[in-house]
Amino acid sequence: MNIAVIGLGLIGGSLAKAIKKNTDHTVYGFDLNESITMYALMDGGIDKALDDTNIAQCDYILLSVYPKATIEFLKEKAELISKSTVVIDCGGVKSSICESCFEISNKYGFTFIGGHPMAGLHFSGYKYATPDLYNDASMILTPQNTDDIKLLEEVTAFLKSLGFSSLTVTTPDNHDRIIAFTSQLAHVVSNAYVKSPQASVHKGFSAGSYKDMTRVARLNENMWSELFLENKEHLLFEIEHLINSLTEYKEAIENDDTETLRALLKDGSDRKKSIDF
Amino acid sequence: MNIAVIGLGLIGGSLAKAIKKNTDHTVYGFDLNESITMYALMDGGIDKALDDTNIAQCDYILLSVYPKATIEFLKEKAELISKSTVVIDCGGVKSSICESCFEISNKYGFTFIGGHPMAGLHFSGYKYATPDLYNDASMILTPQNTDDIKLLEEVTAFLKSLGFSSLTVTTPDNHDRIIAFTSQLAHVVSNAYVKSPQASVHKGFSAGSYKDMTRVARLNENMWSELFLENKEHLLFEIEHLINSLTEYKEAIENDDTETLRALLKDGSDRKKSIDF
Repeated sequence: MNIAVIGLGLIGGSLAKAIKKNTDHTVYGFDLNESITMYALMDGGIDKALDDTNIAQCDYILLSVYPKATIEFLKEKAELISKSTVVIDCGGVKSSICESCFEISNKYGFTFIGGHPMAGLHFSGYKYATPDLYNDASMILTPQNTDDIKLLEEVTAFLKSLGFSSLTVTTPDNHDRIIAFTSQLAHVVSNAYVKSPQASVHKGFSAGSYKDMTRVARLNENMWSELFLENKEHLLFEIEHLINSLTEYKEAIENDDTETLRALLKDGSDRKKSIDF
Repeated sequence: MNIAVIGLGLIGGSLAKAIKKNTDHTVYGFDLNESITMYALMDGGIDKALDDTNIAQCDYILLSVYPKATIEFLKEKAELISKSTVVIDCGGVKSSICESCFEISNKYGFTFIGGHPMAGLHFSGYKYATPDLYNDASMILTPQNTDDIKLLEEVTAFLKSLGFSSLTVTTPDNHDRIIAFTSQLAHVVSNAYVKSPQASVHKGFSAGSYKDMTRVARLNENMWSELFLENKEHLLFEIEHLINSLTEYKEAIENDDTETLRALLKDGSDRKKSIDF
């Protein structure tokens, strides 16, 4: 097959490399930064540069750019895309992207499926892209129709050939609600955590818990601010819920209320055990 | 030398096993739960059971029990301890422990040094103890006099022989202020994080950031509630500081204030890069 990859950052670059490593498909790549496209051509991450003359030949178009750029790209290229093409995006929010992109795909006759690979690094850019990024990762899909079994089977087979171990099919809103908790809130907390005046003097005073808590504090502020604002309602719920929870511990400690503090800690510990073991 | 280890949980059990693995010293062990002491004797983690008749022969006494139990043990056994003995505790708070224990050691003539090994697991108990827990870990020491170089050199050499790679000497209050940030706050946040209604349905929707954020949510509520209340002032400062930081992100998102949100994220990201790279 011919596979287009739009946006050759960490996510798109790794998709391109995973296709090249694991399949015989031809990869058509495009990045706004022309030197990245050239580099990917030279290092074999992609086979050809994608342009308006060859996009119609692509069986899959994988979009891995920011949410607004995803919608803009699809709007701009919609009339060039073949009706047999399946377009999958990789954006970290799904409602806003899918609302616009389902409308475009319905109008022009191709298929659009929202996607979100559950993999990443706290580094960005093609230079960190690796063909193994998706090995054993899961990917979330938000198709317009969840009952097109044949389509979902084909897409699943294609994605599994790149290394993904499992696919989760859900609605855009359900994706956004849960991802606000599992990923977005974690980035907010980690980024906020290092603002303590103690952060700069902790050398020799930390072990695994600090390291894990602050791993994703290093992030791309342009991408994440766009993702956060596109998922405003769900993320605000999570931040407020966490602030309320932290306030319960704070009050128990202020009041020297051992019994309440112990109960709060036991509740959290029991939840963690029941969820992840 | 003869080394006593009081409390054969994860920390004490690992100390005993590290001594047995890396040195020729004799380990005298004691746990309130007699069956643990018996088990450690059988599996070779300790050489002998510690009791009132042999405690005077110990060159080092390593205390790895809860803060209040540390003080109680030392009070009770003080008159049995030789003046040449060095007692080091492993409690997660230092001001409250050191205040009492310096007084006791001054009265009875032996040496007390506050200690805190920067290593642990989110599991507790002798069954998880391992001789390698302290390999390449750092240990914090809070001696009464930081200018007794000979003593600190001897203690450092002893601890390095167990696997510790570096020792950090500081005051009890400085320890407590920084540890509130690096360890205690991380446990509060991780434990609070899993209380979101989304926690129980996240399967397929999470990658590394959720996993790292919630690793230490599973904890021993009895130990941590005691540690938190013994370090009330510093921990409250950290919880409040984090709540205030989170509130800044929340308000920027509520107001669709991209510029402020981006600046908050960039500030956190820059701090993380400057601290840990």
